[in-house]
Amino acid sequence: MKLLIDRIIKDGKVLPGDILKVDGFINHQMDVQLIDEIGKEFHRLYGNCEVTKVLTIEASGIGIACFVAKYFQVPLLFAKKSKSKNISDNVYSSQVASFTHGSVNTVVVSKEYLSPEDKVLIIDDFLARGEALNGLIDIVNQAGATVVGTGTVIEKGYQGGGDALRAKGIRVESLAIIDSMSDDGSITFRN
Amino acid sequence: MKLLIDRIIKDGKVLPGDILKVDGFINHQMDVQLIDEIGKEFHRLYGNCEVTKVLTIEASGIGIACFVAKYFQVPLLFAKKSKSKNISDNVYSSQVASFTHGSVNTVVVSKEYLSPEDKVLIIDDFLARGEALNGLIDIVNQAGATVVGTGTVIEKGYQGGGDALRAKGIRVESLAIIDSMSDDGSITFRN
Repeated sequence: MKLLIDRIIKDGKVLPGDILKVDGFINHQMDVQLIDEIGKEFHRLYGNCEVTKVLTIEASGIGIACFVAKYFQVPLLFAKKSKSKNISDNVYSSQVASFTHGSVNTVVVSKEYLSPEDKVLIIDDFLARGEALNGLIDIVNQAGATVVGTGTVIEKGYQGGGDALRAKGIRVESLAIIDSMSDDGSITFRN
Repeated sequence: MKLLIDRIIKDGKVLPGDILKVDGFINHQMDVQLIDEIGKEFHRLYGNCEVTKVLTIEASGIGIACFVAKYFQVPLLFAKKSKSKNISDNVYSSQVASFTHGSVNTVVVSKEYLSPEDKVLIIDDFLARGEALNGLIDIVNQAGATVVGTGTVIEKGYQGGGDALRAKGIRVESLAIIDSMSDDGSITFRN
């Protein structure tokens, strides 16, 4: 998505430790006009897939998924990070490792809101090793629902999570795929 | 806001422990058409206040604030809950107690994204004792920016947080104010 890639080049910052800082327009401060265009683009990509629900994970996925759900005119469901180790019978749960925070979270979705009839589009801001997407796919599978595909804003292609999902036959759409970043700040995007 | 109050009466559930469960349409699964109308309503209320930025707190405020920011055509900024006790010099921070989770969170906002020129509309899903709003107001004050007012979807009026803020001269707008809830499921709204 040219609008997004141009913005990453203009305002993104490569920091030591393999960090791409986009918190001026995506995941702390959000440029809602850009996010609205991102929602429109995912609707262009998945608009003929009879999506019944958009699923994401708190916190930074929520804003993006809101605009996606608006274009599909379907509900948005966000998985919650559970602080409790006692998971009730009323939720689907999965384990998601966060490499940014060096922790493992249990994420939960109420069984009330996913059913076998659902066709689910999974949305998130970043795709690196694919931990969050795999957790959400696990939850959709537990519900017996269908994963239509995934939509992420920025994929770190060189970390392999996206390609591993594609190899499993899952449709993975990322609006900007980064093949490499270097400490001098340069970013190479996949064509 | 009649559309919202009707929906709370139809789909909200009063649970023991003073809990109003609205997670089917506001804070787990989100009815984005309703949330879009909520965004429009806050723009109607604050549209002439020259708002430059919408501020909320992760996680469940983000979706609502996104639609608000869209109507104002200004950036959305969400305060992050910090896991670290070591707060860097680059952020404004405040302490927010959560009665739901029985914990205190440090919330942070990067200094890059708030400046003394900003006129800030603070948005959240719930207003009870006002802990989250007070934390966000504290952060806006640290930046030397102006709080235009607050906008919350549901205010538990009987918990007093909203009226305490109003008594301080802060403009507080809530789209549904609950004066009482009882265990038989009935809800009394403030006129």
